[in-house]
Amino acid sequence: MNHIKELYSQSLALLTDLYQLTMAYGYWKNNKINQEAVFTLFFRKPPFESGYTIAAGLGTALEYLQDLHFTESDLNYLATLTGNDGQPLFEPAFLDYLSKLRFECDIDAVPEGTIVFPHEPLLRVQGSLLQCQILETALLNIINFQSLIATKSARVCYATQGDPVLEFGLRRAQGIDGSLSASRAAYIGGCAATSNVLAGKLFGIPVKGTHAHSWIMSFASEDEAFRAYAEAMPNNCIFLVDTFDTLNGVKKAIERGHWLREKGHELVGIRLDSGDFVSLSKKARKMLDQAGFKQASIVASNDLDEHLINELKTAGAQINIWGVGTKLITSYEQPALGGVYKLSAIREPGGEWQYRLKLSEEPIKVSTPGLLQVRRFTDNQGEFSGDMIYNETMPPVGSAKMVNMAATEEYSTLSADKPYQDLLIPILRKGQVVADLASLSQIRERVQTQLAHCPAAIKSLKPVDIYPVSLEMNLYHLKQRLIKKVS
Amino acid sequence: MNHIKELYSQSLALLTDLYQLTMAYGYWKNNKINQEAVFTLFFRKPPFESGYTIAAGLGTALEYLQDLHFTESDLNYLATLTGNDGQPLFEPAFLDYLSKLRFECDIDAVPEGTIVFPHEPLLRVQGSLLQCQILETALLNIINFQSLIATKSARVCYATQGDPVLEFGLRRAQGIDGSLSASRAAYIGGCAATSNVLAGKLFGIPVKGTHAHSWIMSFASEDEAFRAYAEAMPNNCIFLVDTFDTLNGVKKAIERGHWLREKGHELVGIRLDSGDFVSLSKKARKMLDQAGFKQASIVASNDLDEHLINELKTAGAQINIWGVGTKLITSYEQPALGGVYKLSAIREPGGEWQYRLKLSEEPIKVSTPGLLQVRRFTDNQGEFSGDMIYNETMPPVGSAKMVNMAATEEYSTLSADKPYQDLLIPILRKGQVVADLASLSQIRERVQTQLAHCPAAIKSLKPVDIYPVSLEMNLYHLKQRLIKKVS
Repeated sequence: MNHIKELYSQSLALLTDLYQLTMAYGYWKNNKINQEAVFTLFFRKPPFESGYTIAAGLGTALEYLQDLHFTESDLNYLATLTGNDGQPLFEPAFLDYLSKLRFECDIDAVPEGTIVFPHEPLLRVQGSLLQCQILETALLNIINFQSLIATKSARVCYATQGDPVLEFGLRRAQGIDGSLSASRAAYIGGCAATSNVLAGKLFGIPVKGTHAHSWIMSFASEDEAFRAYAEAMPNNCIFLVDTFDTLNGVKKAIERGHWLREKGHELVGIRLDSGDFVSLSKKARKMLDQAGFKQASIVASNDLDEHLINELKTAGAQINIWGVGTKLITSYEQPALGGVYKLSAIREPGGEWQYRLKLSEEPIKVSTPGLLQVRRFTDNQGEFSGDMIYNETMPPVGSAKMVNMAATEEYSTLSADKPYQDLLIPILRKGQVVADLASLSQIRERVQTQLAHCPAAIKSLKPVDIYPVSLEMNLYHLKQRLIKKVS
Repeated sequence: MNHIKELYSQSLALLTDLYQLTMAYGYWKNNKINQEAVFTLFFRKPPFESGYTIAAGLGTALEYLQDLHFTESDLNYLATLTGNDGQPLFEPAFLDYLSKLRFECDIDAVPEGTIVFPHEPLLRVQGSLLQCQILETALLNIINFQSLIATKSARVCYATQGDPVLEFGLRRAQGIDGSLSASRAAYIGGCAATSNVLAGKLFGIPVKGTHAHSWIMSFASEDEAFRAYAEAMPNNCIFLVDTFDTLNGVKKAIERGHWLREKGHELVGIRLDSGDFVSLSKKARKMLDQAGFKQASIVASNDLDEHLINELKTAGAQINIWGVGTKLITSYEQPALGGVYKLSAIREPGGEWQYRLKLSEEPIKVSTPGLLQVRRFTDNQGEFSGDMIYNETMPPVGSAKMVNMAATEEYSTLSADKPYQDLLIPILRKGQVVADLASLSQIRERVQTQLAHCPAAIKSLKPVDIYPVSLEMNLYHLKQRLIKKVS
């Protein structure tokens, strides 16, 4: 389902920084629109000091791209913009050009749900300089955020050691789409369900929820509130037990569980939302087990994240469903991924590629030139052993020589017969989808498969090793030459 | 302009946690839908250890409320949801009831752009228990986030001491609406403009931007790139000077400034995006001044926030326009405001109000019962001197006796003739707007007026005093009685 089309009744062509449009105007004025460019989308540092990052958002980005056009209303608005002297920023012939613009770029990208590492291209856009340029902001907006949340979600699910995680963040999310796209990404990363009903409808994510404190408070007593809920919805009973005294709440939930069983239903569980989770969950588990409710779940929710869940697990908390809200939906620990989109090659129509990089005082921030591809080497069991970034216009032949990006003096050579896979695949050609796009649940499964092949030292909450990402030797030398040339 | 209606072609009725709908179903099954409830929206802690918070999002919330209805497509989706036993969660008669539901609550709220403090109601909803309940999640989503960003924006603008702040955050925002609603709130809080063109179109916010590094990199040299930009758009020239060597870039920008002047245009300024801002801006200012470009601005952008801006100002940086992105748009330092929505009174049709509160182990987290209003006392110059929360069903008469919330044993009395204003005003009656709603620029001006009346000790980046918020004496005693009763 195309959720952006459903959600947004108007064009998203203006969802961009003004400077993309002023640059587009400049390219148009300078007869540069037919220069062919390659832009590379990548990030330099994984979030949360995670050992890995999960690429997400491509599906949403494609919905944006396939519907990209400037409407009359967009152009009328652009015509009102003025420069420093009060004169129009854009001349009418340019707006007319925009009105006829149809998106025709080629895109190669890593499939959504792929594990990626710093400096690797997540996405590569090739096409008219003008068209590539105006995509930058929206692509970064969509892919930065969903990759951030998918990674956070994978870490939270890692901490629960297989227990289901429910995403409960809507009320603290950053705006309406800050919740919807985060629910999508959290599901990709491994969450089992969301509380967000609209995300459930739009994306087919399972939705979960029972009742809040206000339900209890609207009755004269907790007992009455549980009874009324069980009568209304006997097949969906997880009782929130902490409104007054938690263990007394558990007792009442058990009484209601017996009543449900007599009626042919089963108590699904209880939910703890405050207090000492370790001690309360142990006591509640014992009470439930002794009363014959071994199958009843204990759900916990209250400012949880992967670190707290890990502590609770270590301390023996008897929680087996985890409701995670604010800290997941906003990626509270680090609420933005610093992905960038850099020009890496340009050519006149029919000409030779001219490679480009962006300098920086910090060597690790210098971008990599070329039409970049990532080759992932594995051992014979499929475990990832290292990635090599190379330029598709000068691919490695025979054995692959490379230089580790984190330690630029460290060379290594891999025999050509080591198993590998190239990560970027053709997604769009002249604006048309050429890839078989996976469904959301397939993307979610891909994350699990990828994590299964990711070394344990990399995927633990505090990674004890750095995954090796190298530049292929020819690319390394190209980059060094360009640095010298432009410095 | 109704941006949600424009943006979202479908109902947002499902933008809610599932438990709101299961509770609504429970109220319906238990014949409680006609009980009248009062819910209060408030927060307990200001963000960023700020001395104040700016209430924002009400305009967006009203757009959501006025369009609230369940579409056939929504109801068809709800009909597919099942409980633990695979049977439907909701019976068809309930879905039929929802299909006919029209939002008819009363809402009182503080006007958007008002300075507010912990525990004060930002918004109060009164109406059918069922209707009040299903609004909770969307109201919190909208108001939590926009209040957070408006407050962040006000702090950033405070740090620049009057220099304009440009919001540049779209590429790092939390999803599409995470950018649009943040641009709206950042403008309310004091930003002068945004880079987000769609936010400009939807909300009428000024948009700003010139060119990026990729513009420079697409040419053979920086010189050629500046020349081409100046020819294309001579009335919008802020040159980004740090692509290669910053001071050399300034020199080239000055050369282009002379050229522009010959053509009858003026250099708007230069932009620094990396390096030592203090030293570079001082040198650039001197170069610009000596070349006769005293009016040319120096814009800085690169991971700025109020703290860094304050340091740069203190160190004498000669920057006079500040581009602030990631740290503002995501409120990086604290990406969520923990606003809550609590049942505070309930009654049978025609009956007496029964006051409600939510207990907590931490006394400061116990909610306040009643139909709450805030009275703000000022001195004769209009400076805020303290706020008093009272229950509208038992308003203070004569002199106001109150108890400070932060120090519950501290009583104070204010004479009735001290100037004051009640902050919550009627916004909706039976679902219809009864207030004159301010335009976005009026809301932005209100923030400035409010800040002008806020004590200096409260509004500094690191407040040196806590603004006094008290409970009116009768309300204080009511709360204490209820705590004893439900504990």
